[in-house]
Amino acid sequence: MLNMDLDFIKKLIKPAKTKIVFLVMDGLGGLPNYQTNLTELETANTPNLDLLAKKGICGLQQPVAPGITPGSGPGHLALFGYEPIKYQVGRGVLSALGINFDLKPQDIACRGNFCTVNENGFVTDRRAGRIPTDKNKQLCELLRKIEIPGIDIIIETVKEYRILLVWRGENLSENIIDTDPQEIGKKPLQPKAKSKDAESTAIIVNNFLDKAREKLSEHSPANMILLRGFSKKPNWPSMKESFGLNCAAIAAYPMYKGIAKLLGMNILETGETISEEFSTLEKYWNDYDFFYLHIKKTDSSGEDGLFDKKVSVIEELDTQIPRLTNLNPDVIVVSGDHSTPSLLKYHSWHPVPTILWSKHCRSDKVEKFGERDCICGGLGSRYPSCDLMPLALANAMRLEKFGA
Amino acid sequence: MLNMDLDFIKKLIKPAKTKIVFLVMDGLGGLPNYQTNLTELETANTPNLDLLAKKGICGLQQPVAPGITPGSGPGHLALFGYEPIKYQVGRGVLSALGINFDLKPQDIACRGNFCTVNENGFVTDRRAGRIPTDKNKQLCELLRKIEIPGIDIIIETVKEYRILLVWRGENLSENIIDTDPQEIGKKPLQPKAKSKDAESTAIIVNNFLDKAREKLSEHSPANMILLRGFSKKPNWPSMKESFGLNCAAIAAYPMYKGIAKLLGMNILETGETISEEFSTLEKYWNDYDFFYLHIKKTDSSGEDGLFDKKVSVIEELDTQIPRLTNLNPDVIVVSGDHSTPSLLKYHSWHPVPTILWSKHCRSDKVEKFGERDCICGGLGSRYPSCDLMPLALANAMRLEKFGA
Repeated sequence: MLNMDLDFIKKLIKPAKTKIVFLVMDGLGGLPNYQTNLTELETANTPNLDLLAKKGICGLQQPVAPGITPGSGPGHLALFGYEPIKYQVGRGVLSALGINFDLKPQDIACRGNFCTVNENGFVTDRRAGRIPTDKNKQLCELLRKIEIPGIDIIIETVKEYRILLVWRGENLSENIIDTDPQEIGKKPLQPKAKSKDAESTAIIVNNFLDKAREKLSEHSPANMILLRGFSKKPNWPSMKESFGLNCAAIAAYPMYKGIAKLLGMNILETGETISEEFSTLEKYWNDYDFFYLHIKKTDSSGEDGLFDKKVSVIEELDTQIPRLTNLNPDVIVVSGDHSTPSLLKYHSWHPVPTILWSKHCRSDKVEKFGERDCICGGLGSRYPSCDLMPLALANAMRLEKFGA
Repeated sequence: MLNMDLDFIKKLIKPAKTKIVFLVMDGLGGLPNYQTNLTELETANTPNLDLLAKKGICGLQQPVAPGITPGSGPGHLALFGYEPIKYQVGRGVLSALGINFDLKPQDIACRGNFCTVNENGFVTDRRAGRIPTDKNKQLCELLRKIEIPGIDIIIETVKEYRILLVWRGENLSENIIDTDPQEIGKKPLQPKAKSKDAESTAIIVNNFLDKAREKLSEHSPANMILLRGFSKKPNWPSMKESFGLNCAAIAAYPMYKGIAKLLGMNILETGETISEEFSTLEKYWNDYDFFYLHIKKTDSSGEDGLFDKKVSVIEELDTQIPRLTNLNPDVIVVSGDHSTPSLLKYHSWHPVPTILWSKHCRSDKVEKFGERDCICGGLGSRYPSCDLMPLALANAMRLEKFGA
């Protein structure tokens, strides 16, 4: 079968007044606890999600490819129908979008981490003891004093140990390797060029890092920075262009706002709690066709290895489901961007439980929302995540028939 | 995974004396009735199909792609192993083939609908009150009097309000937009050229339409025509070339004969009832390797929203199954070209229940032929329809081993 692509779908889009909601529990999928043999989702008491699973069609989506552990970017892009191997975006660009930084087409963005190096220059902490955001701001002031002739280097605080660097000037290239060695006990890598045309950029970055090392030398634990994800803002079709949808994102964390913005969604002001996010959904209900509502804490509790915490976040979300169904959406999708099993304390490759509900979804025999129940769902046990958006559009009566 | 394509399969074809039957219930898939929560197929009493499902391997096929509602052309092409996004055919060509019209390679065919326009030229009925076929024939006589210098315009009655127009001449192009506005309250569209080389053709079509409007002006409700699907006969490999099969089609309706002819099948004379179609199957049993038997009324009752009627058509088909099994075919496939839920009164994107039976099919645990039972079948819950033909060939012992 030919790959389903955005151009193919675009030709079939027809106007409608229907509303679609994507409820994305970050890192939703899990692994069974050794004692109970139940995953976080299977452990959670979720009467409202179970009812939705029973009325809807279920399955497990595979965001990128078999065995591939997705980052947040690819995981979300796949959910929204953008094939993540084709639509790749650097972490630098995501960081920029996430703090509302207005990247110009020629800008090179990269993400920076404050880190700790020892007297020999070896990394001892890749996150500089997770310094507070205020400290980050002070250090950024220092770094802004570095000058490199012929180029503007814009430095912005993101959060805790994370910063954004934007390289603005003539003939800069994004083809620079990450300097983050990804493990402690190693030296930061040299910012080498991946292509001939990036060599002058590599010299500039190297020059900057030498000066940064000097400026930060007295500021342990944040006495160096690691750079990664050199990238330019991609020029992708928006979800409005691809699917004819007026889209809104309800997300509290910068990264997710960034992804949403990249696809042309409007970012709605919201609070950090799940309940506040649902209030935002209610407030703007009449203004959009498509809502992306992002729940962060399923992922962060998974990454921290907190099984019970992740269970309670899922249960908290479950209590809010009636607020969603009371709005009478036409299509509800509940899933995640990837799995984050508490057992692994990290993103994983495991496929992600999904519910798709509409009046015309043709429900299956799944009666409970959980990893193993979803295996026998009608969507399939390891279906490509990019299938979800066309299925949601079909269920929202937004696609024309193909062919005579 | 690499795409399975016809060239790949062709190299593995080996001769055999086995027989394959594809029983295609048009629009077979449905949606559950609100009262009973059972689909048309789940409601129908089908002891013979259930037995076949139990002995066979089941699943749900997705003809084109997730969320895509197939027209009859793409739905059938996929069943027969022709990737429907690659093998696209215009409605004009299908209409021509369906009435046994011998299209020449340079001919441009399009489908015409008699329609009703009001005094201001706005379409008030896209099907001219479904005029009887006899009236259609009289009006075609009128239209045949129109003369355009340098070109033959051949006009043929199809059925009720539908006609075929074939434009025969030098340097004609199929790149002309449909004039059918697809909804009432709009004027017919101008037959514009989609490419530079089609501009002279567009002028000819426009000229013809002006004269047709005049000729038909006193013949309300059929006082205008709408054209769509301008197309040339494609030059595809036949099923004999692709699969080494001598194929026969048993279909009562023009469209399906047309599709079969496009793939090089022989069209067998048959009656309109299911029983007559099975008699045709029996009559020609010794003459072919592959039979396509098409049941239309599952789709037409679905399109008319007649749930109970669709149930009874399925039950009627079920009673004929022993006549098929008594012929001792080697492979039986029972499925549809798409779903047509009575609830939606239209084709839909929902995957289509399938049985594949042979002595070597390796049956699954499915015991009843229904949408939700098929989800757990061995063929998969949303498998590409193009998988079916290679599986049928394998079960008919018609494919060599691949590789040493």
